[in-house]
Amino acid sequence: MTDLNNMGQKAQDAAFELGQLGSKVKNAALLQMANSLVLNTKQIIEANKEDYENAQKNGMKKAMLDRLLLTPDRINDMADSLRQVVDLPDPIGKIDRGWETVSGLDITQERVPLGVIGMIYEARPNVTVDAAGLCFKAGNAVILRGGKEAINSNIALSETLRQALKEVGINSNAVQLIDDVSHETAQKMMELTDYIDVLIPRGSGKFIKMVVDKSKVPIIETGAGNCHIFVDKDADLDKALKIIINAKVQRPSVCNAAEKVVLHKDIANQFLPDLYDALRANSVEVRGDILCRAIVPDIVPATKDDWNTEYDDYIIAIKIVDSLDDAIKHINKYNTKHSEAIITENYSASRKFMKQIDAAVVYTNASTRFTDGQQFGFGAEIGISTQKLHARGPMGANELTTTKYLVQGDGQIRK
Amino acid sequence: MTDLNNMGQKAQDAAFELGQLGSKVKNAALLQMANSLVLNTKQIIEANKEDYENAQKNGMKKAMLDRLLLTPDRINDMADSLRQVVDLPDPIGKIDRGWETVSGLDITQERVPLGVIGMIYEARPNVTVDAAGLCFKAGNAVILRGGKEAINSNIALSETLRQALKEVGINSNAVQLIDDVSHETAQKMMELTDYIDVLIPRGSGKFIKMVVDKSKVPIIETGAGNCHIFVDKDADLDKALKIIINAKVQRPSVCNAAEKVVLHKDIANQFLPDLYDALRANSVEVRGDILCRAIVPDIVPATKDDWNTEYDDYIIAIKIVDSLDDAIKHINKYNTKHSEAIITENYSASRKFMKQIDAAVVYTNASTRFTDGQQFGFGAEIGISTQKLHARGPMGANELTTTKYLVQGDGQIRK
Repeated sequence: MTDLNNMGQKAQDAAFELGQLGSKVKNAALLQMANSLVLNTKQIIEANKEDYENAQKNGMKKAMLDRLLLTPDRINDMADSLRQVVDLPDPIGKIDRGWETVSGLDITQERVPLGVIGMIYEARPNVTVDAAGLCFKAGNAVILRGGKEAINSNIALSETLRQALKEVGINSNAVQLIDDVSHETAQKMMELTDYIDVLIPRGSGKFIKMVVDKSKVPIIETGAGNCHIFVDKDADLDKALKIIINAKVQRPSVCNAAEKVVLHKDIANQFLPDLYDALRANSVEVRGDILCRAIVPDIVPATKDDWNTEYDDYIIAIKIVDSLDDAIKHINKYNTKHSEAIITENYSASRKFMKQIDAAVVYTNASTRFTDGQQFGFGAEIGISTQKLHARGPMGANELTTTKYLVQGDGQIRK
Repeated sequence: MTDLNNMGQKAQDAAFELGQLGSKVKNAALLQMANSLVLNTKQIIEANKEDYENAQKNGMKKAMLDRLLLTPDRINDMADSLRQVVDLPDPIGKIDRGWETVSGLDITQERVPLGVIGMIYEARPNVTVDAAGLCFKAGNAVILRGGKEAINSNIALSETLRQALKEVGINSNAVQLIDDVSHETAQKMMELTDYIDVLIPRGSGKFIKMVVDKSKVPIIETGAGNCHIFVDKDADLDKALKIIINAKVQRPSVCNAAEKVVLHKDIANQFLPDLYDALRANSVEVRGDILCRAIVPDIVPATKDDWNTEYDDYIIAIKIVDSLDDAIKHINKYNTKHSEAIITENYSASRKFMKQIDAAVVYTNASTRFTDGQQFGFGAEIGISTQKLHARGPMGANELTTTKYLVQGDGQIRK
């Protein structure tokens, strides 16, 4: 079995070195990583072919197979995403605040790297490169543990990145991959509290829940998205229709896609038939409560489970409520604290919804699909945090840092 | 057994209401809590007497007994600390940042309460009041679980605070105490992920370790402090002596007290005898490595364990190193990432130490005893975080908040 303590010690040593590097050196390394990926395209694709064929033999679903597949274009995209990380501002060294205390001490609170970040994820090999790039930008060493389905691809990718680091004279243990994909090693990784400062799981809801349950290392929970769009009585119904269709259909498999629509009763009679037709025209299965079915009998009856379910599919469930307050209550009860939207032209309704909804991102008159590091302007993201500690919402390089208080005195002692 | 799910639901409902309260209302409630404590002094002291007598019977140590004891003065101090919380700025509603995206969305990131905070702590009843006050200021509901030794005191204190909330028309479930002090209930609390957003343990290192191991709720680790003071070759030795004595002796039982001294070899011959005499004059047991004992033979030999140990007592261990780099390496290896200090008049040595030491607070020429919410100017603290996630160093009301992104659009959909 892989000696994780040894790997952890190497990561910690590399993290110490990374913490002292300036932006220029880090950016040169990121460019070298990007170029090496392109240069190694052939070897990476050969390794990926092995994974792909194994997955086919093992009967992996088509959508998953597609996620696993690497092509020259996709490798170019990975390289481009590293180049974009180069252009991001370096979060390290920023002074968040500073002041002088009554005892005459000068205190500054400065951004520093977290140290060692663990990434534990499922099949998509692009996470290997994205995570390594973003962790590196913020001065952190990363220990990667991908799924067994992508193990050959992940080895090829991480070895390419490590070689690139060596070429620019940087400790290649800044990026390490656990190539033993046994459950025992994953469990050990989740207990490596002496070396890993934070563990970030990426994958299905089930996978993330497993990591949350088993990890002793502090984790950042990402991903679950049971997102609602509330159509207020004062909504512009054209906007509402476009936004709901976009939020449901543009990419149904992702966490910021809409899963539920809540309608104010005053506009339900007028709006629901149009909404139903538009959703059906986009191949969406429409479920609804008894009030919905009284307006459009073809709507499939929603069960209690529907309100809790993240479909990640061409399915949506609709509920009719009496008031804005009822909508807020319903959403706060069933949401996963990811992204929620109100469609309204009413100032006070917008203000109330924005204040009272408990979620990472709350929208007025826009699609929930914008909850994304790229769309927010962070350039890249390591995931979308649905927890409240440390980071909430899309996480970029800035969220992969912590702070340190620097205190300057001239001999002060405490009275 | 206490129905913790029910308690959790009540806390969540109260947290929703608290999140909507303005500063004025919250501050009026805090003043009412302070006044009620003073008015209820007699009942609180009676309840505390019961705890104290039980503890005496059970052979509690004198220092611990003293921590448990409540007097009219100490209750006044608790009330005063609540009044100080009134004067703190309200962290809720502050905009951390805001920008317009390329798609024309206006994004603001606003400070909001965490929601429900769990406090799990040992004997000191003042934590009950301090935690309730600070959590409330930041708009959070709190569920308190104190030690069995202080259970009667904690019931009297929490009931006083709840009554005060009722009197000003606020949901008294903002402050709840688990009055069942069984281990089973503590374990259930640590698994209450559906209701508790963060759990903060306060107590001995052993107690905190137990909570870290067992909790499924995200926690903020507080307290362990194996703090070092490095005396550089260019130190002002008068400052060094005063700072070391202060950091060791002023209050040896707390986490920001110095536990180790690291001496540069160039000043060891000159400085160590004076340091030894001063420490002995303050009843401190002095341990040291073989180099120290070559200079002062009376120094007790330090074992390997000493470098890892937080004594919280009148004991200190001294190590002599060849260079600043060796000092940094030694400290980063053995410290608990709490507070570390360099004593030097050399600009470059200070800069290097401040940059390369991995700790919540790093000092030049000041006592580590300043790592404290009051001393930092936060007015009060809920603990000192020694982890890197979410909060690092002294935690005030600001650290008991999270953020929410508010996004305003006019019909944007994602392309």
